[in-house]
Amino acid sequence: MSLFSKKKPSDFYPDWYHEEAPKDSYRSILKWGSPTEFKAPNRKLYKLMKETFDMTDDDFKVKQEMGLEKVDFDMPPKLDEKHIAKFREILGEENVKTDNYTRLSVAYGKTMVDLMRLRKHIVENLPDVVLYPGCREDIIKIVEYCNEEKIPVYVYGGGSSVTRGVEPVCGGVTLDMRPRFNKVIKFSERNQTITVEAGMSGPKLEEILNNAVSLFGAKRAYTCGHFPQSFEYSSVGGWTVTRGAGQNSTYYGKIEDIVISQEYVTPVGIIKSDECPRNATGPSIDQIMMGSEGTFGVLTHVTLRFFKYMPENRCRFSFVFKDWDSGVNAVREIMQGEFGFPSAFRLSDPEETSVGFRLYGVADTPIDSLLKLRGYEDGKRVLLLGFTEGEKAFSKNVFRQIWKICHNYGAMYTTGLVTKGWEKGRFNDPYLREDMGDYGLMLDTLECSVNWDNFMEVYENVRRYCKSRPNTICMTHMSHFYPQGANLYFIFEAKMSDLQEYLDYQYGIMDNIQKYGASMSHHHGIGKMTAPWLEAQIGHNEMEVYRALKRHFDPNNIMNPGGTLGLDLPEDKRRDFITKK
Amino acid sequence: MSLFSKKKPSDFYPDWYHEEAPKDSYRSILKWGSPTEFKAPNRKLYKLMKETFDMTDDDFKVKQEMGLEKVDFDMPPKLDEKHIAKFREILGEENVKTDNYTRLSVAYGKTMVDLMRLRKHIVENLPDVVLYPGCREDIIKIVEYCNEEKIPVYVYGGGSSVTRGVEPVCGGVTLDMRPRFNKVIKFSERNQTITVEAGMSGPKLEEILNNAVSLFGAKRAYTCGHFPQSFEYSSVGGWTVTRGAGQNSTYYGKIEDIVISQEYVTPVGIIKSDECPRNATGPSIDQIMMGSEGTFGVLTHVTLRFFKYMPENRCRFSFVFKDWDSGVNAVREIMQGEFGFPSAFRLSDPEETSVGFRLYGVADTPIDSLLKLRGYEDGKRVLLLGFTEGEKAFSKNVFRQIWKICHNYGAMYTTGLVTKGWEKGRFNDPYLREDMGDYGLMLDTLECSVNWDNFMEVYENVRRYCKSRPNTICMTHMSHFYPQGANLYFIFEAKMSDLQEYLDYQYGIMDNIQKYGASMSHHHGIGKMTAPWLEAQIGHNEMEVYRALKRHFDPNNIMNPGGTLGLDLPEDKRRDFITKK
Repeated sequence: MSLFSKKKPSDFYPDWYHEEAPKDSYRSILKWGSPTEFKAPNRKLYKLMKETFDMTDDDFKVKQEMGLEKVDFDMPPKLDEKHIAKFREILGEENVKTDNYTRLSVAYGKTMVDLMRLRKHIVENLPDVVLYPGCREDIIKIVEYCNEEKIPVYVYGGGSSVTRGVEPVCGGVTLDMRPRFNKVIKFSERNQTITVEAGMSGPKLEEILNNAVSLFGAKRAYTCGHFPQSFEYSSVGGWTVTRGAGQNSTYYGKIEDIVISQEYVTPVGIIKSDECPRNATGPSIDQIMMGSEGTFGVLTHVTLRFFKYMPENRCRFSFVFKDWDSGVNAVREIMQGEFGFPSAFRLSDPEETSVGFRLYGVADTPIDSLLKLRGYEDGKRVLLLGFTEGEKAFSKNVFRQIWKICHNYGAMYTTGLVTKGWEKGRFNDPYLREDMGDYGLMLDTLECSVNWDNFMEVYENVRRYCKSRPNTICMTHMSHFYPQGANLYFIFEAKMSDLQEYLDYQYGIMDNIQKYGASMSHHHGIGKMTAPWLEAQIGHNEMEVYRALKRHFDPNNIMNPGGTLGLDLPEDKRRDFITKK
Repeated sequence: MSLFSKKKPSDFYPDWYHEEAPKDSYRSILKWGSPTEFKAPNRKLYKLMKETFDMTDDDFKVKQEMGLEKVDFDMPPKLDEKHIAKFREILGEENVKTDNYTRLSVAYGKTMVDLMRLRKHIVENLPDVVLYPGCREDIIKIVEYCNEEKIPVYVYGGGSSVTRGVEPVCGGVTLDMRPRFNKVIKFSERNQTITVEAGMSGPKLEEILNNAVSLFGAKRAYTCGHFPQSFEYSSVGGWTVTRGAGQNSTYYGKIEDIVISQEYVTPVGIIKSDECPRNATGPSIDQIMMGSEGTFGVLTHVTLRFFKYMPENRCRFSFVFKDWDSGVNAVREIMQGEFGFPSAFRLSDPEETSVGFRLYGVADTPIDSLLKLRGYEDGKRVLLLGFTEGEKAFSKNVFRQIWKICHNYGAMYTTGLVTKGWEKGRFNDPYLREDMGDYGLMLDTLECSVNWDNFMEVYENVRRYCKSRPNTICMTHMSHFYPQGANLYFIFEAKMSDLQEYLDYQYGIMDNIQKYGASMSHHHGIGKMTAPWLEAQIGHNEMEVYRALKRHFDPNNIMNPGGTLGLDLPEDKRRDFITKK
């Protein structure tokens, strides 16, 4: 590659850093996913970035703030040694860690602010001690002790939070749930449910269900149905407490549709919901606890539905519409068609379609030429892709109905290959961020929930704000669809490495999401990042309900304290935004 | 008919009382539904009852406790006149009533205990005054005033509660929501949602949606999808606060799947959820309020999803299996088949099948003979009936898949006619109770929620208890299905007119439902009737969550006080039952 670029200077392609990060370095923490997996912007994206960001090849010759340095700072644990001794007594010596690297490695999630801080060696918040519980009893003892001693308790699952949800802003302990609290407790093929400890990782759960025949003597293979983009580095506990959604949620449902029951250890005792599929026995305990993001207690066990693993029944499709309006009307009609829902389903706006065609290898192919010939113009046309699932005839019929509706809205069928291209990148796009960050480029996303009535206004105005910054890419898509609305995703890319500049831009986007009536999150959750907007969105009286629950479960405010969900956010930190409604 | 019975004395058929109840009589209150609609047990059911209850024609010659007398009792309102004056000031003279008949007519629901008490002229609990609010502002003023003055507030919707949910055990005011608080607030065809006032009746909502073209200029007709047996005398508010389910819930979902947003007036202010289809913005406000059964506040507005009205796509079916096990395995496989769900869906156990065949006119027909010939024996065989809905090809495919699975489990297809027979009676079966009650016969139901793992144990043991009483019919069916379980319905009929005898029997059934691990209700709710069992079912810590919410919303305990949901139930009234789990 570098040989080639020497010969043709105009074909310069950056020398991306694709080496395992040095041991104990900041980069080893900020890096997404596998230490040995990488993903560079391809040549077409590279070209687009240069054009859009007004950059030259020279700007990609020197890397910056790579975080290759060994983690090193002077912030000794503030927690009294007697407490640490107590934790050692509960968990054993080896399951209590206080070294700097371990503490920093569970302090941040994976939002842009986290990555930027790590690149800049900004260590703001740390747990005093990292604990590795191995069973429910460990967690009960830890929560009881911390409640007595008023020690803050944070929980770290997969570490993929993009809302500063895991950040221990008040110090104290962080429970790292993955290493030792990840077992299967119960598998019921008859109920089609599996009960697991909260530290179970997404891929491990899927592997277990795929192998149910050999592991449990089941009749067939199953799937969990929940595949967020962060899938490979996410945990069942994290899915649940944040109200997450997988990329196939249009068919399988959001995590609240998949979770059948939960168990939490709270300062006032264990909370456990039953395993009946539905009840009329008062408010839903499950729905009170889901979305509490660690502020009411520690989620220990989750019983999840699972589904038949039938990839052979998938029908992949993609369609290109002449314009955004046609695409939006078509997906709404599909979701209201009462023939079942597709599984993966994604409608990209003109800008994302344009970028996507380069990324998925459609641009400049015969399909692209044909599209242009037929009047599907770049910059106006929009791409719908996805696949159907389920029982064979069901899946085929959903495909057929989608085809019919898209055809009625003037779409051109562009085969299932585009979807295959998207599938290849669906879990590894986050790897792009390291390579981009090395050249001072920011890539981040925000998402919100809309209904069909307010969707277009939210789309237009948030996008207008995003694009008001020069030299900025703003790609928008809808995914996670419902008959009544959808999730709306904004992906923005720019040359930006100043933390405050980034935050100002991000806050502006969130202000606009709120101003035009969207819900602040469909599946990322609130954490500490979006917390200042929560009260203005859900309302003061509604926020007081959350605070009443918080006082009940956690009278000493030890569970994920410091602003999570806006529960203990000082009034001057709450965005006083007047929504348009 | 009576001429015929004179000729052939063995064909005696009772002279059912099919006249409009006298004005202002107890019977006019206890009678189900329309004053001029009646339904007598048909001759086959009459014969079965005589056999089972060990009765003769002579027992059906004299009626008892018919409640024909004019409502008359001496329980003047206890509320100070100044309060009543205040309500008159808020609502106007004509919307405040204190006469005995009006007060009694909103005091009870329609459970057996209610009907028995009315037949016996037992007036235990009454509101002091009945109010007819006409708008949200009326309700705000009433709740504010009652909260200041600590006056209990009860809400009466359709009046079909079977849990003593509406009973004003502490006196005070009852808001009768139907007459004046029943308007459409918003219709959005794009969102497929309608916002209505809580007093809107089921049939009116359905009529409005069926006529959306002429009423709102919509493109087509729609349906609400929610048809509880009480449909004709139910209200949207009642559906919502009790977590109700319609008979077609397997396809359309329970009310919590249909409700998109709600607004409540509580003593601490208005609580309103947003109209986005899904959120990740903390615990679900909707799911905290749904199931609160009037104990947190007054539900004023509900935004519901609606669906395309496509009765032409229905495929009706019925199948007979050789035994209960085959039927149960088949329905589980259907629900886990991932081809979509049927709409109406009902699997009757051997006893209900036997009775049902008489009621739906199958017994002694050629179908019956053929069944017997092929080894589907009465007393063992079970009936599955229902229909599919949705888009045409979807509906057909669900039908085809059901057919395939039933066939694999050895079922015989018995056409859609049986379903048609069931549909005729689906909303008017409750009318049977007046005719039966006139001869001292009790007909009541209890329902619970099970998962597939505990279903058979619950079924066998609850049924064993029911049948331990001699001369008692106990029919059981499953309806409202999920991939993880179902709702289990027990219908019991016996000669029983003593209130205490009835209560002892009912309590025994509920003890057994709880003992074998079912959830105490799938869709009737808890009310005051099931409240003593709630804490043992959901657990003490979970109950304390409800109590914390109650303290928050209603610090003066004015909202539906007196044991509803077990919130202010004295400890000695809580059933101290050790569940088997």
